[in-house]
Amino acid sequence: MRIILLLIFILGVWLNSFGQLRNRVISPEVITGNKIVFRLFAPEAKSVSLYGEWITDYTKLVILQRNDTGLFQVEVGPVAPEIYGYNFIVDGVLVLDPSNPLVRRDGQRNASLVLVPGNESSLYGIEKVPHGTLSKVWYNSSTIGINRRMYIYTPPGYEQSDINYPVLYLLHGAGGDEDAWTTMGRAPYILDNLISQGKSRPMLVVMPNGNAYQTAAPGETPSSTTTERPSDFASYRGKYEESLVNDIIPFIEKNYHVLKGKDNRAIAGLSMGGGNTVTVTTSHPELFSYIGVFSAGVRNADEAFDTKMKAIKDNKVKMYYVGCGVEDRMAYQGSQLLVAILKKHGIPYIFRESTGGHTWANWRIYLSEMAPLLFK
Amino acid sequence: MRIILLLIFILGVWLNSFGQLRNRVISPEVITGNKIVFRLFAPEAKSVSLYGEWITDYTKLVILQRNDTGLFQVEVGPVAPEIYGYNFIVDGVLVLDPSNPLVRRDGQRNASLVLVPGNESSLYGIEKVPHGTLSKVWYNSSTIGINRRMYIYTPPGYEQSDINYPVLYLLHGAGGDEDAWTTMGRAPYILDNLISQGKSRPMLVVMPNGNAYQTAAPGETPSSTTTERPSDFASYRGKYEESLVNDIIPFIEKNYHVLKGKDNRAIAGLSMGGGNTVTVTTSHPELFSYIGVFSAGVRNADEAFDTKMKAIKDNKVKMYYVGCGVEDRMAYQGSQLLVAILKKHGIPYIFRESTGGHTWANWRIYLSEMAPLLFK
Repeated sequence: MRIILLLIFILGVWLNSFGQLRNRVISPEVITGNKIVFRLFAPEAKSVSLYGEWITDYTKLVILQRNDTGLFQVEVGPVAPEIYGYNFIVDGVLVLDPSNPLVRRDGQRNASLVLVPGNESSLYGIEKVPHGTLSKVWYNSSTIGINRRMYIYTPPGYEQSDINYPVLYLLHGAGGDEDAWTTMGRAPYILDNLISQGKSRPMLVVMPNGNAYQTAAPGETPSSTTTERPSDFASYRGKYEESLVNDIIPFIEKNYHVLKGKDNRAIAGLSMGGGNTVTVTTSHPELFSYIGVFSAGVRNADEAFDTKMKAIKDNKVKMYYVGCGVEDRMAYQGSQLLVAILKKHGIPYIFRESTGGHTWANWRIYLSEMAPLLFK
Repeated sequence: MRIILLLIFILGVWLNSFGQLRNRVISPEVITGNKIVFRLFAPEAKSVSLYGEWITDYTKLVILQRNDTGLFQVEVGPVAPEIYGYNFIVDGVLVLDPSNPLVRRDGQRNASLVLVPGNESSLYGIEKVPHGTLSKVWYNSSTIGINRRMYIYTPPGYEQSDINYPVLYLLHGAGGDEDAWTTMGRAPYILDNLISQGKSRPMLVVMPNGNAYQTAAPGETPSSTTTERPSDFASYRGKYEESLVNDIIPFIEKNYHVLKGKDNRAIAGLSMGGGNTVTVTTSHPELFSYIGVFSAGVRNADEAFDTKMKAIKDNKVKMYYVGCGVEDRMAYQGSQLLVAILKKHGIPYIFRESTGGHTWANWRIYLSEMAPLLFK
């Protein structure tokens, strides 16, 4: 309310300075041909530029042009149909687009969001289909010693039925937290769409917080705790994976009507979460029949690791999905190494080499391609 | 990830310009004595000011002072322990604090968030207590003809028990949507705290979207729909209240293990939601035994309205809570009028006259004072 009054006040100042009423600024505006118009009314600013995630060379900011009223504007594109984060840079300060209510947090940073509709974005667009429920759930991690938060997606109809469903455990990367797969990954909408199209079996998706030192995402933690990486960070190594096995899976299987046993459990993760996935599945080859490692792979494959991977084969994993962008150098090498080991042991695998790099666009694609293959 | 690279790039430009490495900017920083330090590194900006919700005179922006490195800074306070939204104004542009990951959306506008801990904010602070689950749930509104979204808070232990719980229906104001009571109102944490202290009975809290033309909050709607007020807005009048009775209550009572009957239902709302509450309870005096009208009241009290209020008395309402800030002129008059009618009919009421005006600080207080009185 006060912000509105403040805006009126600022508008008043502008009125005095410019003698004309500014219409409400529309930004971003997606126009035909997959183009986007960005606008910012900033009569006092010297320069306005923008960075958006469609830009592969981040040193090439887009410059907005000022007209005689102080409105800065630029048209970009065509760009691929996708959801993009972007920021304005106003006189050197990285800011959000004040005309756009849609904001996405990535770790400690926020970006404004724009969706260009089309084939790619229809994977995770919000369609007129039945939607599952997304819940923020607190559980006790006795392994880590704190009460922690995670997200749980239950498929459409879950609350109305007594059917037991299979479960996908879906892990985020470094810098993320339990919000990441729902905000940037859009996992709930990907599943809604796949399920409504009959492509995926209805399943639960469990999205924990992979930073073992955190209670929950920033702003959702007790004021006496911090979300920043602690100095004794190293002491948390392996705790999350242990907690997944000892705290999270038992919590889910106790409190939700789900199917048990390895054939009804899948696990997948991106980047750091891909590493977590490798760690959990090699230490507990008896737990999951479906494994997905996105944009991660493995760094080295010594004899001990090889023995562990053989155990995965012996435990009859049904599908091992490896997804990686060919421009994602380190991870791509690691993925090739992982695939070589899968091949050697005769573990059934899919190697999805996509264009691009270490991006949410790729992780959304991997999830949307892997989910239909689960529990069948 | 790319944003980090971009920041490194911008930092590089600054390094070139200033020849020294900038440490990471900490902002906001809450310091002793309920003071807050705000900082923004903006060597190219001419002026930086800020507006925060503790400022009652919105024409008096706080000016940040620039030091010789280009860091703008200001210390404000002491301020009352509360959670506040604030924005920077950089060369005339209203922006968020780029150093602060915490963002709160109010309708179409975002603000950065800062919490000053203390007595007032402990009402809704995140404490080390058992937390309930907060779920985003989709339901079909046959009254409105769309699949819509709401939030449902289930108390700690709900998933683990077969106990049936009572339900509070909690309504937001104009300009808000289903997010408002969870983000600005912090209802889940208020209930967690009251329940853990034994002050409130465990209950469900149902927080629907009160804009009958909306599917859900911005960014959560099918791309073919809009969240903006339509030109045929008037045709939606009364639909939300109807939908609450015909769609939402039946959905909750079918899909959740809750207690039925009026003594196990409460309804409360702020501003527009207070109006919705008056409308629903006068049209359906048989549905709720507990009624809360925050910062709203009634505009006129003709004979027809008086008859309806008598029906509320005849239906043995157990408690009618009226909360209003004495500086909230229109609503305060309306609240006094409502209280006069309650008095006349001998309806048991509480009139909570607080300091301040039409603010979330007040609405959080009213909820935290009303909830302990429910279902007893």
